[in-house]
Amino acid sequence: MTDSQGEVTPLELYEKLNVQGEKVRSLKTAKAEKADIDTAVQLLLKLKTDYKHLTGQDYKAGCPPPENVVNQDNGSATDGIDEEDNVDPWNVSTSNAKGVDYDKLIVRFGSSKIEKELVDRIEKVTGQKPHRFLRRGIFFSHRDMHQVLDAYEKNKSFYLYTGRGPSSEAMHVGHLIPFIFTKWLQDVFDIPLVIQLTDDEKYLWKDLTIEECHRFAVENAKDIIACGFDVNKTFIFSDFDYMGSSPEFYRNVVKIQKHVTYNQVKGIFGFTDSDCIGKISFPAIQAAPSFSNSFPQIFGGRKDVQCLIPCAIDQDPYFRMTRDVAPRIGYPKPALLHSSFFPALQGAQTKMSASDANSSIFLTDTPKQIKNKINKHAFSGGKDTIEEHRKFGGNPDVDVSFMYLTFFLDDDEQLEKIKQDYSSGALLTGELKKILIETLQPMIAQHQERRKQVTEETVKQFMTPRPLNFKL
Amino acid sequence: MTDSQGEVTPLELYEKLNVQGEKVRSLKTAKAEKADIDTAVQLLLKLKTDYKHLTGQDYKAGCPPPENVVNQDNGSATDGIDEEDNVDPWNVSTSNAKGVDYDKLIVRFGSSKIEKELVDRIEKVTGQKPHRFLRRGIFFSHRDMHQVLDAYEKNKSFYLYTGRGPSSEAMHVGHLIPFIFTKWLQDVFDIPLVIQLTDDEKYLWKDLTIEECHRFAVENAKDIIACGFDVNKTFIFSDFDYMGSSPEFYRNVVKIQKHVTYNQVKGIFGFTDSDCIGKISFPAIQAAPSFSNSFPQIFGGRKDVQCLIPCAIDQDPYFRMTRDVAPRIGYPKPALLHSSFFPALQGAQTKMSASDANSSIFLTDTPKQIKNKINKHAFSGGKDTIEEHRKFGGNPDVDVSFMYLTFFLDDDEQLEKIKQDYSSGALLTGELKKILIETLQPMIAQHQERRKQVTEETVKQFMTPRPLNFKL
Repeated sequence: MTDSQGEVTPLELYEKLNVQGEKVRSLKTAKAEKADIDTAVQLLLKLKTDYKHLTGQDYKAGCPPPENVVNQDNGSATDGIDEEDNVDPWNVSTSNAKGVDYDKLIVRFGSSKIEKELVDRIEKVTGQKPHRFLRRGIFFSHRDMHQVLDAYEKNKSFYLYTGRGPSSEAMHVGHLIPFIFTKWLQDVFDIPLVIQLTDDEKYLWKDLTIEECHRFAVENAKDIIACGFDVNKTFIFSDFDYMGSSPEFYRNVVKIQKHVTYNQVKGIFGFTDSDCIGKISFPAIQAAPSFSNSFPQIFGGRKDVQCLIPCAIDQDPYFRMTRDVAPRIGYPKPALLHSSFFPALQGAQTKMSASDANSSIFLTDTPKQIKNKINKHAFSGGKDTIEEHRKFGGNPDVDVSFMYLTFFLDDDEQLEKIKQDYSSGALLTGELKKILIETLQPMIAQHQERRKQVTEETVKQFMTPRPLNFKL
Repeated sequence: MTDSQGEVTPLELYEKLNVQGEKVRSLKTAKAEKADIDTAVQLLLKLKTDYKHLTGQDYKAGCPPPENVVNQDNGSATDGIDEEDNVDPWNVSTSNAKGVDYDKLIVRFGSSKIEKELVDRIEKVTGQKPHRFLRRGIFFSHRDMHQVLDAYEKNKSFYLYTGRGPSSEAMHVGHLIPFIFTKWLQDVFDIPLVIQLTDDEKYLWKDLTIEECHRFAVENAKDIIACGFDVNKTFIFSDFDYMGSSPEFYRNVVKIQKHVTYNQVKGIFGFTDSDCIGKISFPAIQAAPSFSNSFPQIFGGRKDVQCLIPCAIDQDPYFRMTRDVAPRIGYPKPALLHSSFFPALQGAQTKMSASDANSSIFLTDTPKQIKNKINKHAFSGGKDTIEEHRKFGGNPDVDVSFMYLTFFLDDDEQLEKIKQDYSSGALLTGELKKILIETLQPMIAQHQERRKQVTEETVKQFMTPRPLNFKL
């Protein structure tokens, strides 16, 4: 599981386009397989769109972009180009203050929207009130969730798989979203869960040592355990450790690697020929936990147990690849539940960064830090003066404090009242921020309390390959 | 460790050249790194040479080869092209009946010739008569062997690493060459040895299941053990098993994978974009045993123990890559001893094949099969009639029976006499073949006897990660 690699310059993008153009031509000349040509063309078109988006100009071979060109107005539609959000495992960017356009993303990724009907069905099947992330469309997209429920109703159970790329010790509240939701799924469906910590991936992508990445994995595991997972139903693993202790996991990795070509990962992930061979083969390692026989200690060698993956939508490319491979190696396709992105304090267009302490609320923040950060950095949808605000009201759709409340304030009625009062002007920005501060302070304090109780022994228990307690 | 993939047609080669030409142009356009451009150009030049060799014509973009063109006379030098042998881990071919030109190969690969001086030095250091493979130049090339001996003289020991790709149950006598020699090295230097069975590689390259490849690994291990290795100093491992039981091995694999780009493996191994990502990342797995900390159970975490790899020269590309990576990840470069190729019964230009029972003597052959195969299939350097043979003599340089004797008849004087008698015409082809038959029959019978004594328990002992008995 990955995040940003940094931004690309117009010239870099131009050069990428040159290479990709030549690539398409040479594939055609060489009468390469149609699928290979198609993926190459798809990447070319994507690069062209990115180029237009970045520079405001059409790409033209032989005409490099003028120095320092940037599209000054790439939020407007005046240039006729369909404004597109950029979402892949390493880059999430949008020019819209409300955030990424998720309906468009569903169409682009070919997934299905989580409609009210599906939420109602989950309520019916589990007998539990749906989690606020479902009620509020924070988990907004899925693949095959109806099939999972069909089987579940016929007493065919499934297992959960989620993960995290441990690139630093510091986790922020946004990192908890998939785990909070996964814990809820584990509770209401009463099923086993595997959590992959991709320390190998972080080593490959970042300027970190293996030892650092592995240490981050163990530290992150503590925060994950503090979310309240059931140790009898949960296996957390570092790739560096588990690969070296499970011949079955490695066998599945190689099986996947045999059935995915470089052309395919290039098309899906945008790898280039200068990328290291570790990156190129990594997607198989994130794919492998989707198959139950990667965990013989849990599933006793069964390869047919259905997997459900709750994750942020930027991880979907890994699982599109996984779903493409699955039937070819005789395994069921994993189902997915996709979450939207958690916005940075500075607004939904900006990227949260573990290295910028002010970009989010961290799980180690003190009550005072939480208060100061929100008051100082949380982007406001309010008006410039109290008079104007009272008169015209604030805009909750771009207000980060309000967005954070949709994630963490469980009371629907209270949230609705806040929205109305803020929109009408009855609630001032400072008052809204105060509500958020008073919501987050106890939440983070409780998390810290629970994390303190996570001993090395507990971590070892969760991270030891062992049978889990459940009925399939 | 790998062998042939099958032959390439002129049109396939032409198309590869198109793709590679475009590739070079686009790298230059994109101002790619010099090293990347250089490797791409190198591959282009190699393909051009191959094309000329195969078709007898120069490659010209836009002019595909006429149908069914083949160079009728690619053994002659009349076309002015420097006749080149083709040697990589998957293809070994030559047009010369004497076999590959090893002096040229040394220049091309940048290794060093094993001169008499080095053989004498090994004799001096070990106090043992050099093995016939050294005396007769069957191991003909090396990298850093003098350094290994320098250190050994100062009481700094080293370890041996060799391997095999288990693509079938059937091993022939040629497969024993590296093992016979490695056993000798183990005995005279008294050092530990690791033997890698690349069952993962065979699964990636061949149309075989994981289970088949793993079974071949275990079966091949029995033949290897029958060569007489010391169980207290030898660890044999299947990649599928060892990767899943050694976090340290996997850590080294990922470390290597981080420091090798796709461009590099493409240049070294000729991979294409349609190859699966498993093949592309595999070279790191063959590289990793070159570093002592891949075996903490043996070397206690030490990463500085020098490795010496005896192998056939076609495996050198893997270790050129390994030696390039080693200093960048803080490990010593492995040293190498390269053997020449074992010829097929039909002659040094043809390829031995595990699927063609008549192409070599197999370790399971009966005395009768050995006799019949040699009499019927061993290419003869003798004359057509006894009269002519008596008059003009035979040519031992192209005679496969004589070549086999250089591998397996230990008595130098007897071998020299056979050579003279055959060259003079005193020894007839049938008589020469009889000597070979009488050399191989007991040798194979003894091997079969020793193999019978290799129990499942013995195999398990050799293949269990454990400390070995030696002093470094």
